[in-house]
Amino acid sequence: MSSLLLSRRDLDFLLHEWLDVTRLTARKRFAEHSRETFDAVLELGERIATDHFAPHNKLADAHEPHLDADGRVVMIPEVKRALRVFAEAGLLAGELDESLGGMQLPTVVSKAVLAWFQAANVGTAAYPFLTIANANLLVEYGTPEQVDTWVRPMAAGRFLGTMCLSEPQAGSSLADIATRAEPQPDGTYRLYGTKMWISAGEHELSENIVHLVLAKIPGGPPGVKGISLFIVPKVLVNADGSLGERNDIALVGLNHKMGYRGTVNTVLNFGEGAHTPGGAPGAVGYLVGEPHKGLSYMFHMMNEARIGVGLGAAALGYTGYLHSLEYAKVRLQGRPPAAKDPALPPVPLIEHADVRRMLLAQKAYVEGALALGLYCSLLVDDSKTAEDAVARDRAALLLDVLTPIAKSWPSQWCLEANSLAIQVHGGYGYTREYNVEQFYRDNRLNPIHEGTHGIQGLDLLGRKVVMKNGMGLRVLGETISATVQCAIDLGGETAEMGRALQDAFERLTLVTAQLWSAGDPAVTLANSSIYLEAAGHIVVAWIWLEQVLAAHGKDGPFYAGKRQAARYFFRYELPKTGPQLDLLGSLDRTTLEMDPSWF
Amino acid sequence: MSSLLLSRRDLDFLLHEWLDVTRLTARKRFAEHSRETFDAVLELGERIATDHFAPHNKLADAHEPHLDADGRVVMIPEVKRALRVFAEAGLLAGELDESLGGMQLPTVVSKAVLAWFQAANVGTAAYPFLTIANANLLVEYGTPEQVDTWVRPMAAGRFLGTMCLSEPQAGSSLADIATRAEPQPDGTYRLYGTKMWISAGEHELSENIVHLVLAKIPGGPPGVKGISLFIVPKVLVNADGSLGERNDIALVGLNHKMGYRGTVNTVLNFGEGAHTPGGAPGAVGYLVGEPHKGLSYMFHMMNEARIGVGLGAAALGYTGYLHSLEYAKVRLQGRPPAAKDPALPPVPLIEHADVRRMLLAQKAYVEGALALGLYCSLLVDDSKTAEDAVARDRAALLLDVLTPIAKSWPSQWCLEANSLAIQVHGGYGYTREYNVEQFYRDNRLNPIHEGTHGIQGLDLLGRKVVMKNGMGLRVLGETISATVQCAIDLGGETAEMGRALQDAFERLTLVTAQLWSAGDPAVTLANSSIYLEAAGHIVVAWIWLEQVLAAHGKDGPFYAGKRQAARYFFRYELPKTGPQLDLLGSLDRTTLEMDPSWF
Repeated sequence: MSSLLLSRRDLDFLLHEWLDVTRLTARKRFAEHSRETFDAVLELGERIATDHFAPHNKLADAHEPHLDADGRVVMIPEVKRALRVFAEAGLLAGELDESLGGMQLPTVVSKAVLAWFQAANVGTAAYPFLTIANANLLVEYGTPEQVDTWVRPMAAGRFLGTMCLSEPQAGSSLADIATRAEPQPDGTYRLYGTKMWISAGEHELSENIVHLVLAKIPGGPPGVKGISLFIVPKVLVNADGSLGERNDIALVGLNHKMGYRGTVNTVLNFGEGAHTPGGAPGAVGYLVGEPHKGLSYMFHMMNEARIGVGLGAAALGYTGYLHSLEYAKVRLQGRPPAAKDPALPPVPLIEHADVRRMLLAQKAYVEGALALGLYCSLLVDDSKTAEDAVARDRAALLLDVLTPIAKSWPSQWCLEANSLAIQVHGGYGYTREYNVEQFYRDNRLNPIHEGTHGIQGLDLLGRKVVMKNGMGLRVLGETISATVQCAIDLGGETAEMGRALQDAFERLTLVTAQLWSAGDPAVTLANSSIYLEAAGHIVVAWIWLEQVLAAHGKDGPFYAGKRQAARYFFRYELPKTGPQLDLLGSLDRTTLEMDPSWF
Repeated sequence: MSSLLLSRRDLDFLLHEWLDVTRLTARKRFAEHSRETFDAVLELGERIATDHFAPHNKLADAHEPHLDADGRVVMIPEVKRALRVFAEAGLLAGELDESLGGMQLPTVVSKAVLAWFQAANVGTAAYPFLTIANANLLVEYGTPEQVDTWVRPMAAGRFLGTMCLSEPQAGSSLADIATRAEPQPDGTYRLYGTKMWISAGEHELSENIVHLVLAKIPGGPPGVKGISLFIVPKVLVNADGSLGERNDIALVGLNHKMGYRGTVNTVLNFGEGAHTPGGAPGAVGYLVGEPHKGLSYMFHMMNEARIGVGLGAAALGYTGYLHSLEYAKVRLQGRPPAAKDPALPPVPLIEHADVRRMLLAQKAYVEGALALGLYCSLLVDDSKTAEDAVARDRAALLLDVLTPIAKSWPSQWCLEANSLAIQVHGGYGYTREYNVEQFYRDNRLNPIHEGTHGIQGLDLLGRKVVMKNGMGLRVLGETISATVQCAIDLGGETAEMGRALQDAFERLTLVTAQLWSAGDPAVTLANSSIYLEAAGHIVVAWIWLEQVLAAHGKDGPFYAGKRQAARYFFRYELPKTGPQLDLLGSLDRTTLEMDPSWF
């Protein structure tokens, strides 16, 4: 009996038959690993996700965190228990150095393990995920002392972490954040400001909470160039590592969301004086790295965070797909058009062509999205550990250009997959008795957080495809061309797919040039969201062609399914980019010319 | 201050400047009406919806109906109060004959009035809406005595009505219903069976509930041809109209849904013996019309019910659009790409091109959907009251072919509009503090009930476009061609739109013939959902061109907005049909060839 979370068979195909991740063990950092250790941790992840995260997914949704009379955040006890199991298995430290108690796993393996948790219970999974991102950032940019003080307890699960970026008046626009950090004579800072949408911002799940906070040091440059990064703990830590006084951070309130309800989402006031340590006002903070470079540190982590969002969307899509597939196999209803005789017994839903279409679309979306996320995770590894600097730079460049797609495409299409999963269930799928409506509600967050769809479009068209003289897009083009060449060499249908992909990518390159020749950034960027969507479909078509190549010459239903999903993608999905590229190439001004008063 | 429900300005444009509904007053049935009476009832609807339905929309969502210790359905008291105001205003009898206390309103005006309620509170609106549909059916097919006994109290709001079609084992497949109706010596029937998804199936909102139940009389033909229709009241009514004993109907349970939570949704057992009147088991039912013709009666009402679903989807999309438009005007955030200087003040969201795109898309979807729904409602009037039989038949034929589109297109694209409304709000839109997430959850039901998207596709491609030798599609083509000719006569951009529409429709006609020449219904119908979507976009492009013609030569921001939304639709939306028609024309077999074991 499958857990209906992800398919281990598919993960094995992607990691081993396609990406051949075991070759990473030739690198020094991963030399202690082997196919066996990778398999073991994947199995561990599946088991813990199945046994400790999935069972309370609905419960946490129905009983979201709330405040008790004393203003404490109350949540169902299953969350804390699940996190303990997660931490005890060492999964909080999966990618960290052995010296920090970590497993030193490649990112691609670690992300595959974590996808089980995103599929099982995205609300509970958010607590360790934020902690891992926080710890990774501090390992990269913190001092050794900061790593000892904050990362070690996070790796052990004693502390949990957050990221505090947004403010109520400045959602996507970080240039406008108003939180300020006043330097103190002892080298620390005092922070004052309000942070919005802080997931895991306050709870009783851990001894302490390590907030990573973006703030401005007075006198710095305006806008994003004046943003610095601070560690601001809920509870101060003494020199010997023991817990000290409470820091001056007040919980203003909780946000109640459509989905993702298991993750407490908070508004926090830093420096209200409510719990002022030592009588001085302000929340005590410790600068990370250099002043005014906070956003660049965040951006270095952003690639991983955004790939994580994309994988989360893929995982939610995947589990919805498996749930609807199971339902379609067992639920008997109606008869196919060729056999309308009511005396015949009803057939399983899966016998209806339209139901198969909805399942095949889901399969194409979710397996494509998962594959894209794992590919990008491997690029994270390659950008850090590939054999030579050229390969590392190339991986970093490709990762940069793919990141907005790896974030947005799954968020859009795996949400659509969840909608199809509901549709396969009919009225039952719309009820809370079944699981799929929650996946749909949970997944609707993904096009919003970690940079909205619109922000990703601007990032791709406004920055990524033109940076370094368009080198990012060229590297992507070379990578795709290599795949196309292999496909053409195989001939037949695979070659046809290769040629269709090549045409689409050449068209994208041409349209990119047309857009940038407009001479007015407002015109160039007016339809950047549609550019993002077209580029996304072309990239995922390439990811599907890669899978066809990896399945080449292999028999059996699994490989036949891969080929059919690829066919679906090339026949039903890739052609959607035609009208999108036509529109983009026309330098359309419809939205620009829409006067606000005409609405 | 606008109510943010619908735009009265737009309704006036559609009803008067486009559809010229006042000309209906030349017909005998509507002779007592005038522009003034239509305006008065529209204003009445807006006011009651704004004052009595909208205020408890969120409350009803947060406090869905539940069972008390005695098994009674409990809901917030605002629902009953709102229904009383609705009934006292005479709106339950808007379309009914004056002899029944009705207003004898044209359907097109009545549906426009009701759209205010769908926008304000779709959950509470469902109670009167089901009652209206039930009453309309009984007026058409019931005996005068049945009309007196059941319709009069419904028109007065003393009784409410339901439709009981689905059963747990037979969702969309009505051929498989198992509820049976045993004839009794006194001419009544006793019903036995379980009905699923019964909205308003049990509550304390009215003195009685009039269930219209599909059931099979033993010995009848198999499948849908053996289905009969029965009135089965919750409480029996004595000869003098007073209430008698409770009928044998038991509430088995409530369904808890993702949205539409204000509408109690029930599972009912008919004939469990729990409340057997007179000691005999079974639920007492009264046959409507002739035996075995129940489904045809239902189908005659289905057009109106499906247009009602489409209008509900349009209304939810519309209110979401207006909410996000309001937010985009007041929320300051970020700067346009041409003015990235952080020293400049942030601008309203509406200044960002991508936000305008999301607003323009919503405008194109929701105004297009509302216009389509009103057009089809006018066809209902014309099919009944047009001057001559040819015109009536033609209207009925056009209505038949447009109905699956009028149901599905708004359900798909106004849900997408609600998603865009969330996106315009960013993180705030994902919280329950704002309204848009509820619209999205509520609207997700519309592609499911009253025939799923897949069922509508089969209805359009499998039945409607081929019935009467393709006469339905031809009449649609002639109607569209007339619009195109007017557009071409105007020249310029309008003529261009006309030619694009003509091309698309000719392509659709060709593809329809290709599909039907496949020689295998499984191949013909395999992609009927995509056929439905392509046909829907082409029809709505026509509806937009109609609006452009109605706005021709008129100045001011309202008309400029109409033209710009039409441009958006022709540039961004209509071209999407190209790849869809390519796929359909290729007689693609991808889904048919997908073996279930390959998933």
